Amino acid sequence: MNRLSLTQEFSVPYKYEVFFTENLFEKENTLFKDFIVNFGNKDYQKKVLFVVDEFVAKSHKNLTSQIVAYFNHENFAELMPEILVLEGGENCKNDPRYYEEVIRAINEHGIDRHSFVACIGGGALLDMVGYAAGISHRGVKLIRIPTTVLSQNDSGVGVKNAVNYLGKKNFLGTFAPPVAVFNDMQFLESLGERDLRGGLAEAIKVALIKDIEFFKWIIAHIEELIAGNKRVMQEQIFRCAQLHLQHIASGDPFETGSARPLDFGHWAAHKLEYLSDFQIRHGEAVAIGICLDTLYSYLKGYISQKEAEGVVYLFQDLGFATFHSALAENDKINLFNGLNEFREHLGGQLTITLLEKIGKGFEVHEIDFDLMKKAVDLLEELSQ
Amino acid sequence: MNRLSLTQEFSVPYKYEVFFTENLFEKENTLFKDFIVNFGNKDYQKKVLFVVDEFVAKSHKNLTSQIVAYFNHENFAELMPEILVLEGGENCKNDPRYYEEVIRAINEHGIDRHSFVACIGGGALLDMVGYAAGISHRGVKLIRIPTTVLSQNDSGVGVKNAVNYLGKKNFLGTFAPPVAVFNDMQFLESLGERDLRGGLAEAIKVALIKDIEFFKWIIAHIEELIAGNKRVMQEQIFRCAQLHLQHIASGDPFETGSARPLDFGHWAAHKLEYLSDFQIRHGEAVAIGICLDTLYSYLKGYISQKEAEGVVYLFQDLGFATFHSALAENDKINLFNGLNEFREHLGGQLTITLLEKIGKGFEVHEIDFDLMKKAVDLLEELSQ
Repeated sequence: MNRLSLTQEFSVPYKYEVFFTENLFEKENTLFKDFIVNFGNKDYQKKVLFVVDEFVAKSHKNLTSQIVAYFNHENFAELMPEILVLEGGENCKNDPRYYEEVIRAINEHGIDRHSFVACIGGGALLDMVGYAAGISHRGVKLIRIPTTVLSQNDSGVGVKNAVNYLGKKNFLGTFAPPVAVFNDMQFLESLGERDLRGGLAEAIKVALIKDIEFFKWIIAHIEELIAGNKRVMQEQIFRCAQLHLQHIASGDPFETGSARPLDFGHWAAHKLEYLSDFQIRHGEAVAIGICLDTLYSYLKGYISQKEAEGVVYLFQDLGFATFHSALAENDKINLFNGLNEFREHLGGQLTITLLEKIGKGFEVHEIDFDLMKKAVDLLEELSQ
Repeated sequence: MNRLSLTQEFSVPYKYEVFFTENLFEKENTLFKDFIVNFGNKDYQKKVLFVVDEFVAKSHKNLTSQIVAYFNHENFAELMPEILVLEGGENCKNDPRYYEEVIRAINEHGIDRHSFVACIGGGALLDMVGYAAGISHRGVKLIRIPTTVLSQNDSGVGVKNAVNYLGKKNFLGTFAPPVAVFNDMQFLESLGERDLRGGLAEAIKVALIKDIEFFKWIIAHIEELIAGNKRVMQEQIFRCAQLHLQHIASGDPFETGSARPLDFGHWAAHKLEYLSDFQIRHGEAVAIGICLDTLYSYLKGYISQKEAEGVVYLFQDLGFATFHSALAENDKINLFNGLNEFREHLGGQLTITLLEKIGKGFEVHEIDFDLMKKAVDLLEELSQ
């Protein structure tokens, strides 16, 4: 009986919509209501627990009362009387008390696997609340309502959640697709210049590794993007989210392999965020990380100097800082430790995406540290 | 642009083997080694971190040195120098310091998504370690080596993990299939009578709701099962595990719906475990829970009195107590609260499995509390 075995094999299907809308909780907008009513068992009165980013609540003072009115208008679901308003930003992922607070509310309000946690906020809050929802009862249903460019075009439409632990970014988390994402343009109007810009980093990233036409489109619309032109911003978000979703669905959604092309530029970005104690935001760090790996791609001979410098100048034209003091000499060891942490988080071989050409990424499994040092120096030079 | 949306849709495939073997870490047994070597990238030296149930380590004093020798024998993978030996049983699921300890080790030893955590122990330890592995780096690979009848024939071959939180059993957890399960008969030989028996409850459960032939087989082998006859025990485990695996694969592996027939008898069992402060073990609680819902099935007119009593007597013949003082009058309210907690954990409608006949379960969404009270009284009577 030594080699007797039973084979277990099955697939788990996932499906969700990413909606693009405006004024989600205006009474006339039935998108949210229709989604809840038509989801799963129609005869069952569903519960919805809201968690709102403090910054968003401050910028949209009527938001919570608008949500209450929206639920009162037609009795389509049970709104939990407590609407959690929590600090967003990286700190909510660093301090376990935040996700414990969400779990407490899930428990107290009897949110079950057929109820919803609806999270309104930026990428960090969505990550943290998604984690709390993902581990409660082995996963209660999560609705994401991203409020920043970065979360609407990238993280908010994906399948991951996480919090930071033991000083490491995203150390704890799960793969847990949301049941729906509502991208409401209205939320972008209260964003400052810094946040509008930050989100463009992920758009440039996905364009550089996947879609040269989208890259050209971004260059052709620099002015409008800087000015936050609504129609142009919406098109940027739609195209970026679409590329992101396509990538997840066509590949390895729960990342069982080593490939992770969407993390182009992210190994340095993650480390920079820590080294700067999160003074530098994710999109800003990603911009620098992309510039670094683009210059490295040039130094390895894959793309031309002109192409590589063009990427750096594009970020500069959009107002990004393309260098940070944490990249300077003394911290270089720290930065290269980042490569190892990145490998460890993903596991297996080190896998870094470089540019084969503009619009096409490819993977390498080794980094030449001396050449990367040169890329750092070159980036510093170009950024003066 | 109000109704613009993108649809995301994909499936995530899972596959794993449940191996039946003996003396897994004897040098001649290459099963474990072959699995590791052939898993994923063959050129990559994999790491394995072991976590061992304290009770198992005590009963098998050579186990850890045997593991070290097994890895030294042929250099097929990197054994982490620290082998965690942790208390098993429900307490390791109640105290967060246990899973934090496992996460600490995962971090310190650089266990990544292409490395393995191998857990040797009973169902509770497997649950707790599975949770720690499931949330670290969004899931490092878990190998389960169950050491009790209950974990070899039931929980250890399934797709869930969990810890207890806020006084509620399995409040935190994820769906995270293992990459392999090794059922080693050798571990069962050190089990006491109570543990050998405890595991039979899940076998009777799955037989009652799915397989009348297996039910008859159990009745025909009462003597051998009590005596812990190796061949009979192994057949029992194999058939029970097979039914369990088939159920998961053919249904709704990650339980997105309300159905949960494998939880026959479990609503009362979970609550009894808490009410008895875990003095009563899971298998023992399940036995009582099954008797209760079997008698309720009779009182509702689905099965005959003789069939229902036969189930109670089978448990008694196997040496199970079929009643517990926590079911007595004063605690009845508590017990019925258990129905609500059970519903909440699963979510949606209350869904309880009853017996349509011996060998076939079916689901109801309402429980008649007065009739359930009668079932409790009847069970007390039959248990005197």
